[in-house]
Amino acid sequence: MTYQTLDWTVGDDGVAVLTLHRPDALNAFDLTMARELERVFLTDARDDAVRAVVVTGSGRAFCAGMDLNAAGNVFGLDEDLAPTPEEFRERYDEPPYDDGLRDTGGKVTLAIHALPKPVIAAINGPAVGIGATMTLAMDIRMASTRARIGFVFGRLGIVPEACSSWFLPRIVGIQQALEWVYSAEILTAEQAHAGRLVRSLHEPDDLLPAALELARSFVVDRSPVALGLAKQMLYRNGAADHPLEAHLSDSLAMYFTSIADGKEGVAAFLEKRTPEFTGKASELPRIYPHSVVE
Amino acid sequence: MTYQTLDWTVGDDGVAVLTLHRPDALNAFDLTMARELERVFLTDARDDAVRAVVVTGSGRAFCAGMDLNAAGNVFGLDEDLAPTPEEFRERYDEPPYDDGLRDTGGKVTLAIHALPKPVIAAINGPAVGIGATMTLAMDIRMASTRARIGFVFGRLGIVPEACSSWFLPRIVGIQQALEWVYSAEILTAEQAHAGRLVRSLHEPDDLLPAALELARSFVVDRSPVALGLAKQMLYRNGAADHPLEAHLSDSLAMYFTSIADGKEGVAAFLEKRTPEFTGKASELPRIYPHSVVE
Amino acid sequence: MTYQTLDWTVGDDGVAVLTLHRPDALNAFDLTMARELERVFLTDARDDAVRAVVVTGSGRAFCAGMDLNAAGNVFGLDEDLAPTPEEFRERYDEPPYDDGLRDTGGKVTLAIHALPKPVIAAINGPAVGIGATMTLAMDIRMASTRARIGFVFGRLGIVPEACSSWFLPRIVGIQQALEWVYSAEILTAEQAHAGRLVRSLHEPDDLLPAALELARSFVVDRSPVALGLAKQMLYRNGAADHPLEAHLSDSLAMYFTSIADGKEGVAAFLEKRTPEFTGKASELPRIYPHSVVE
Repeated sequence: MTYQTLDWTVGDDGVAVLTLHRPDALNAFDLTMARELERVFLTDARDDAVRAVVVTGSGRAFCAGMDLNAAGNVFGLDEDLAPTPEEFRERYDEPPYDDGLRDTGGKVTLAIHALPKPVIAAINGPAVGIGATMTLAMDIRMASTRARIGFVFGRLGIVPEACSSWFLPRIVGIQQALEWVYSAEILTAEQAHAGRLVRSLHEPDDLLPAALELARSFVVDRSPVALGLAKQMLYRNGAADHPLEAHLSDSLAMYFTSIADGKEGVAAFLEKRTPEFTGKASELPRIYPHSVVE
Repeated sequence: MTYQTLDWTVGDDGVAVLTLHRPDALNAFDLTMARELERVFLTDARDDAVRAVVVTGSGRAFCAGMDLNAAGNVFGLDEDLAPTPEEFRERYDEPPYDDGLRDTGGKVTLAIHALPKPVIAAINGPAVGIGATMTLAMDIRMASTRARIGFVFGRLGIVPEACSSWFLPRIVGIQQALEWVYSAEILTAEQAHAGRLVRSLHEPDDLLPAALELARSFVVDRSPVALGLAKQMLYRNGAADHPLEAHLSDSLAMYFTSIADGKEGVAAFLEKRTPEFTGKASELPRIYPHSVVE
Repeated sequence: MTYQTLDWTVGDDGVAVLTLHRPDALNAFDLTMARELERVFLTDARDDAVRAVVVTGSGRAFCAGMDLNAAGNVFGLDEDLAPTPEEFRERYDEPPYDDGLRDTGGKVTLAIHALPKPVIAAINGPAVGIGATMTLAMDIRMASTRARIGFVFGRLGIVPEACSSWFLPRIVGIQQALEWVYSAEILTAEQAHAGRLVRSLHEPDDLLPAALELARSFVVDRSPVALGLAKQMLYRNGAADHPLEAHLSDSLAMYFTSIADGKEGVAAFLEKRTPEFTGKASELPRIYPHSVVE
């Protein structure tokens, strides 16, 4: 599988690097990139040889946002079939609806979110619009001092998408999230760091090595099953209404891991040796009634 | 419409200033103020000429809390009809109940929350009890160095109200929220800022100008429809159990804006000119099945 | 009631000190400690003479985690009856299930969480695994500069348990939670403080006195009913989908307290005297339809 807009390489250490690769267009997001990003997270990244993913941009930008020259397409609109605002109000008066209407950016971020492995954004330069919101579904954001991040939707008369309203308040708190979305300003790397959107700042040349090192520290001698389940649990239980919901999935996950990789982990600990885990992220047990992570 | 306890003015720039105005009583909250606050947010503030609201206090206080001389009334209690604690336990043993019993402060904060426009608290002095909790439903809190903020309910034998237990942990995290409510202390402006309750501190004379400037930056050349929907999305999706819920509202909101103000926004961007949005906050499409924002 | 693994004392000021007491084993968590912790929070700590609880460790550790020499038991596993991973997948394919399978750590943290009184962790030394996650269900964490905190599950091939995936993102945000769980590193006291897991750092000898002082400040001249309801509200409403859910419990709690301890609190305030509250935490009114806090 080769991609037109992406570069995908998997290291011997199990850390994959996904590079947004339309350098002549500042890696702007178009329909091809949308389809390819969804695909890479739903297929290649799910290979058990892949233990973690680092996402970065080619050239001086991370992703300049939607390619507005192709905006109609990116919105998924067929200009001839699109309703008027008045028709829209009538047609969608009572959601939920069954129309196949889906935000393109959200298809990508749901695919990222569903990957039961650590995903790190290495934001090397401007990340604007969908270029900013796609990083919110990644678990950790590291940035170059040259990064610029903008939730600029309000200037364009559109809304923050790609499930960003679900992720952003969880990362930076509701007050900061509201201010950044209302202001629609481009944030400096320092502002993004001070507001806790970005975990750490790095000199441009140091960013990718630091992201790779962090990714490696997550996976070396770790159980991919334990990590994959923990990711699901932190997001789902962290958003659940009551700790009893966590207790249900905890019990299943703890029980399962204790008869699988946990047995080896405890044995290795007691024998003071490195564990050799055999579990696979592609074979996680189901710990939620309706798991969206298949 | 004139108010007894409030001052309401709308600037040419679309930024309204709402001043709590009972300066002889440190702007204490009584039943008249409660009714007037609910009304101003449900009526005047919804006029499309209003694009954002800044709330402040007249004189040296923001709001000294409930007027305890009228406490019975503020609790909505008719002393003759009020049950005993024992009768209460029996009567309300199985909520939800259908009794018309409603917290007065909550009626106000739900009206603030439902306004699909930015609301900024400019906390110019003491904000205590309901004077503190009402600001939590405002999107952003700025404070004078003379501000003092107190969740003092525990000292009075009552609970934090006005939906504050919904808002406070989302703004400052659960650990800080618990400490402040347990301690029931009056916080200095610096403490409130360090704990991330307050976005920024200002010299007393600089507070209102800074709040007005921030409000203006939110609305000049911005789509009121995009802003109104974004506010709903950040609060609702930020509290939803799963990003799929965000994906549903994202898809509707993105689709609608892309055939409305988004068309103008993208065109203006490509033509390097200022957009002229025509959408109105009073005509938001419905993007949630049971929207409480009518 | 005496305990084998715990020390429990109640001061005249109503502040109880619970000491994890297996100093020869660094207070490691075994099945006896699990049962005793659940019991102390469900029985002794519910006595109305107890107004707040401070939890600390005996000797140089807080709690070194699960006693791995008894790991099978701690997981609640009967090795002969335990399914294989394949049998597990088949048997638990469709949760929820009705099997009595319950995470041991979660039984403890649910009992801590359900106590309608302030609980403060005074982390005096290493707190690892369940030693770390049990503190997340406590309302506030204070630490000695000698504290070390580790969510080390990933190294052992198991998942973070004890409802920690519900609590941790609410305390430190989702990005920090994911990094700590993925890395499975032992954090220094300073790292835990910088990441906002721990409220404050103290010299070793100052930790317990500081925790006792904070606990006292929460309960002296405070209504135990107001505090108990506020705790329920901050956790439950802080995790609810919409402020309307808070409005329901607010209305019930505010109404109840206003005819009970609130009457005394307001009277004392107006008469400038110390209130004498008579309400009891053991007699809280029910303010949620299905309260798990009995």
